Amino acid sequence: MTSARVGRPAPADVRTVTCVGAGVIGGGWVAYFLARGYRVVAWDPAEDAEQRLRHLVSAAWPALTELGLADGASLEHLTVEHDLATACAQADFVQESAPEDLELKRALLARIDAATPVEVVISSSTSGYAMSEMQTACAHPERTVVGHPFNPPYLIPLVEVVGGAATSPEAVAWASDFFRHTGKSVITMEREVPGFIANRLQEALWREALHMVAAGEATVEQIDLSITDGPGLRWPVHGPMLTFHLAGGQGGMAHMLDHFGPSLQSPWTRLVAAELTPALRDAVVDGCDREADGRSIDDLVAERDRGVIAILRALGRA
Amino acid sequence: MTSARVGRPAPADVRTVTCVGAGVIGGGWVAYFLARGYRVVAWDPAEDAEQRLRHLVSAAWPALTELGLADGASLEHLTVEHDLATACAQADFVQESAPEDLELKRALLARIDAATPVEVVISSSTSGYAMSEMQTACAHPERTVVGHPFNPPYLIPLVEVVGGAATSPEAVAWASDFFRHTGKSVITMEREVPGFIANRLQEALWREALHMVAAGEATVEQIDLSITDGPGLRWPVHGPMLTFHLAGGQGGMAHMLDHFGPSLQSPWTRLVAAELTPALRDAVVDGCDREADGRSIDDLVAERDRGVIAILRALGRA
Repeated sequence: MTSARVGRPAPADVRTVTCVGAGVIGGGWVAYFLARGYRVVAWDPAEDAEQRLRHLVSAAWPALTELGLADGASLEHLTVEHDLATACAQADFVQESAPEDLELKRALLARIDAATPVEVVISSSTSGYAMSEMQTACAHPERTVVGHPFNPPYLIPLVEVVGGAATSPEAVAWASDFFRHTGKSVITMEREVPGFIANRLQEALWREALHMVAAGEATVEQIDLSITDGPGLRWPVHGPMLTFHLAGGQGGMAHMLDHFGPSLQSPWTRLVAAELTPALRDAVVDGCDREADGRSIDDLVAERDRGVIAILRALGRA
Repeated sequence: MTSARVGRPAPADVRTVTCVGAGVIGGGWVAYFLARGYRVVAWDPAEDAEQRLRHLVSAAWPALTELGLADGASLEHLTVEHDLATACAQADFVQESAPEDLELKRALLARIDAATPVEVVISSSTSGYAMSEMQTACAHPERTVVGHPFNPPYLIPLVEVVGGAATSPEAVAWASDFFRHTGKSVITMEREVPGFIANRLQEALWREALHMVAAGEATVEQIDLSITDGPGLRWPVHGPMLTFHLAGGQGGMAHMLDHFGPSLQSPWTRLVAAELTPALRDAVVDGCDREADGRSIDDLVAERDRGVIAILRALGRA
């Protein structure tokens, strides 16, 4: 079944979002799109999927209500379909959140592609597969993109958007615009990198943590405490790069790299460091300057301090 | 010069803290101890050290005042000494925060050790050296410990405490008690691991980020945005382990490892994964259960949601 519509709807004209897969991530998307005022059609092959989905959405709704629902947002705008093709035929946008299994996703995307009006963009929540690998069985791969969210999708703003080899740049731009229109914070990637950006960083930390537990170097509880009471309090304010920009005092990242650069060779993680070439040093220093965008070190220190204090207070720990 | 005092003062009886090194970290310690009501004696060999230190402490003071100063806390309780031995002779506790250079720290700790009353604990802010390496030139290495803070030491609660081969377990316990008494969150490590705990995790993330910039996979700005708007919002609430406990739905970390375990073999970071042996799986699952301490998955989800919303609001982003 294909729509009679010619061309893609404008991002602001999307009314119905179809969510394929209704586990923790898919269900989180359902809650998010409902809260933003969309009609949501969900499909999941599990026997108890609808019950689990409604449990998850109900659990998220108080938080979403507190944050502010869009006009007309309602739990009653959720329909659970038992037939995938029926679910996809109604979509102005499709978000796929199936289990992380390449063959499964490849086959499922082909079924979604066959059932979804040809102008509608299909986005995958995959945690790290390239769309180039997943879109190979689609008749219309040009409208398939990765739209990678973070748990819970109804609260964490970030979505990483990237296309595959057969994706049209226009579909990537449309998906980025659509997610932004819904209120998401979007990173549009120019090229496919396994794990995208945030998951690569998070995965490096997670793997080091697993090594440490395996080697008896730290307990699970020590690892969590080391982050909740340590660097984790700075990262939501400035991210890892601008945080280290402030580790160099008035000299900023340039001084930090010159001062701590040699410690990149220290055995402080199992991950071998990048070679700190002049080009890499300059790219990091220049990137921090661009990101600081005129804010002085003193400005950023004051901003960080306000942020950390606000977080400590918000979490009842000040 | 040694004190006539017999035995170490109780942690609650410390009155004067000597801070050796007054850069970003040392100066942050000065601000922290002043705010907690201590008399602080600072020493730094740099010509303009006192001016920079007073600038840093003044900049931090509004934040510390807002958080609440201890009774009697005052900027007037700061003395900058021009002679290291004079500074150390007055100490009930010494915190060393010199540049990250092993030979420099080894020599400096020996000078501090020679000038500090023998019962007084000497702590180093080193970012990753083992005290076993740094204490070798001390006559009384038994009272030397690592007390590793995070920038800014006046706001980030965490201090990692660990002794060296020649450190007495009693000095490690005393330092942990003292830092806790001042209001710090303390992780006492049983063994020396290069980079301790939080820095190993942070360093793995940082090195992956540098590799990504070097390879053109992400810009500095994308890396920071991916954390501030993504996983960085969850880490202050639960840390990386309990965060992933919630990625598995009602099945928790056990389901998460069974479901995403294979992705440990994915090329999502340059860090090779630990082998997910049954022992490691059980250690992580059991650790999460201990840390959850009776809180159900639903409890933790609600707690995370409240925390993320509070952080978004605190940072003006809700």
